[in-house]
Amino acid sequence: MDKRQPLRGACVLGQSGGPTAVINASAYGVIRAALDEPAITAVYGADHGITGVLNDILYDMGQEDPEELELLLHTPSSELGSCRYKLADPEKDDSDYRRILEIFRKYDIRYFFYNGGNDSMDTCSKISRYMNSVGYECRVMGVPKTIDNDLYGTDHCPGYGSAARYIATSVAEVNRDNRVYPTGSVCIMEIMGRHAGWLTAAAALAGECGEAPDLIYLPERPFDRERFLKDVADVYNRKNSCLVAVSEGVRYADGTFVSEAKESSTDGFGHAQLGGLAAILADMVRRELGCKVRGIELSLLQRAGAHLASGTDVAEAYAAGRFAVESAVAGVTDKMVGFVRDEEDGKYVCRYVLLPLETVANAEKKVPGEWITPEGNGVTEDFIRYALPLVAGENDRKQIGGLPRFARLKKIRAVPAGKES
Amino acid sequence: MDKRQPLRGACVLGQSGGPTAVINASAYGVIRAALDEPAITAVYGADHGITGVLNDILYDMGQEDPEELELLLHTPSSELGSCRYKLADPEKDDSDYRRILEIFRKYDIRYFFYNGGNDSMDTCSKISRYMNSVGYECRVMGVPKTIDNDLYGTDHCPGYGSAARYIATSVAEVNRDNRVYPTGSVCIMEIMGRHAGWLTAAAALAGECGEAPDLIYLPERPFDRERFLKDVADVYNRKNSCLVAVSEGVRYADGTFVSEAKESSTDGFGHAQLGGLAAILADMVRRELGCKVRGIELSLLQRAGAHLASGTDVAEAYAAGRFAVESAVAGVTDKMVGFVRDEEDGKYVCRYVLLPLETVANAEKKVPGEWITPEGNGVTEDFIRYALPLVAGENDRKQIGGLPRFARLKKIRAVPAGKES
Repeated sequence: MDKRQPLRGACVLGQSGGPTAVINASAYGVIRAALDEPAITAVYGADHGITGVLNDILYDMGQEDPEELELLLHTPSSELGSCRYKLADPEKDDSDYRRILEIFRKYDIRYFFYNGGNDSMDTCSKISRYMNSVGYECRVMGVPKTIDNDLYGTDHCPGYGSAARYIATSVAEVNRDNRVYPTGSVCIMEIMGRHAGWLTAAAALAGECGEAPDLIYLPERPFDRERFLKDVADVYNRKNSCLVAVSEGVRYADGTFVSEAKESSTDGFGHAQLGGLAAILADMVRRELGCKVRGIELSLLQRAGAHLASGTDVAEAYAAGRFAVESAVAGVTDKMVGFVRDEEDGKYVCRYVLLPLETVANAEKKVPGEWITPEGNGVTEDFIRYALPLVAGENDRKQIGGLPRFARLKKIRAVPAGKES
Repeated sequence: MDKRQPLRGACVLGQSGGPTAVINASAYGVIRAALDEPAITAVYGADHGITGVLNDILYDMGQEDPEELELLLHTPSSELGSCRYKLADPEKDDSDYRRILEIFRKYDIRYFFYNGGNDSMDTCSKISRYMNSVGYECRVMGVPKTIDNDLYGTDHCPGYGSAARYIATSVAEVNRDNRVYPTGSVCIMEIMGRHAGWLTAAAALAGECGEAPDLIYLPERPFDRERFLKDVADVYNRKNSCLVAVSEGVRYADGTFVSEAKESSTDGFGHAQLGGLAAILADMVRRELGCKVRGIELSLLQRAGAHLASGTDVAEAYAAGRFAVESAVAGVTDKMVGFVRDEEDGKYVCRYVLLPLETVANAEKKVPGEWITPEGNGVTEDFIRYALPLVAGENDRKQIGGLPRFARLKKIRAVPAGKES
């Protein structure tokens, strides 16, 4: 690579996997930096991630109103659309790769930015290897996102802080409501995270408002039905109320998801039941304790809740996008942007680093065992210290009359260089 | 009544019924005004509404830190605790009333403020009549609250605007997430309101963000299963996604709640099912369309969501509390504070009026028929115009590190006048 003469050509950005409150902030970081970069001749957004490349549906970001693009900072969900498309192993079937190369050539795409989780980093890695193997010069960069916070090699992930702030705030508010009547009540809050408990652990941050959940169950520990019922009964008998935060991904010791176990079924005949884990556990507690029980599933609300995006998360998500572009133009390829936690004058700061795509792809980071209490129903102060800086800072989203003003992109289809009519 | 010589004595405030995001703003309006009022000799808060009076558990608000009291403006749920206690008809059983009189005499209580919905206005009305009948001078005032917005005689109710803002914002955010994949998705959002559709109608305000729900079903119209499935299929086939807002209280033409109907049950054998209406309708659609369907119940989140309280609602809730105290000291009794919508220079303003308790008690205000579309699956522009001013205005809640800072009251038990040690 030659730093004095950066690679000239167009760039394309794709968004992939489950959306977050700040994935568009990263997109804006990429788009803004790329539009400002002389070496990058055109900035395209792929419709629904890599499928937009395969289907030749690219949007010309250069034709968007800059003010609307800036609103992406506070617009939830993936503005360009997402996908869960998994590329084949190129040694077995290279048809997708040949198609991608064709499109890259058509638009003279020399920079590929992919905004997603570990599956997306796998996609990046495969594309990079293929382009290398055919001698097509193209810089490939991963921009991380996931509310699950489970990407390997990075201190935390863009999207996590905002979802954590949403969860902590909601738990704090609901906890107050849950004990408003003298008659007593148990509330089970189901939180996302199929394999890692980072999001569910964030419920503990409600303790900063004096509203900590009484019990927290993460997928990192096997779920024991009897132990759970005893935990809830103990708290309820002592306090006349109980708030439980539980990960959707908790499993029994035999590996069965609690949400799918037959013994959880409502009628004991193994009929499938409606509603998710929260409803199942609520029913379990109701039968055992005979008290009022409510199940609440935070569902999409927790990953779409841009109105509660953490200022820190928005800023870092944006910076990650910019850093990807700047690094690629400087000659870097085959890397994902990672975050390193640091301190300056005793205050949290985030440094941006580059991680090999292969390190990140298809690995998962769990909540460390020592951050879970020995009883397996809570998290430690170490976790709180880890998570607090990530939820800090108000976002400065735009509203009109108390309602969010999201970005409205024109999404004008791209025309290859030299083909303008 | 003699305006030159206001009634001297203590006051007590109780909170009753389901909490809201701003019921404590009204409580603060009462407490602040009462503390500032020379005729009022002591300000008590009743623990869990009228049951706190019956159990002689009153807290001395005069001993609270003024800054903590002010935080009540943005603290959700009923800080004093709530109840759903229904007083007997005094002609059949006056034991509760005699106990209330005893406590009122014990603390020299001459002002009774009750913060609640229509049942609470019934409580107020009964207490007022009883005190009158025994010749005990006491001013009784209702301070309205209900997210349901169903109180008769008032343009709207404190608590509604904040829940409406929460619902509109959440629907807008989730709607964006619901169509992020090219594979298509239906999302059913279940919203509170057992008898009146005001809250569910508020989902339509997401249209101001370009994210209107596709279909809205209110309890004011009978629910037709076939019509509903056809509506969803039509939208889904056209758009590849569909977002439905539905009231928990929708019923079939025969009066059965859809959430309780046997035909809704998952296995067709009439076994009780877990999960609520959203899960039932999601299952219905999944069987019919075979597509990805998600049910989301906003549950307690929508009434506890103080972080999204509307600035207008907070200000009006507070003003209603103050107005109740000022009116009572000026000689008024047996009234509930009501809101009249007015305009000044083309801008929405709210005027405070006094309504007879009996007008309000046990009546319910529904969404006007002409504000529901002829197809019964949406609301009109008239509703939007009605609701928009109520969700407007940011609240200036206090946060620490991105998390809410709620009021922390000391709740020191009251000592009757002259009994201080």
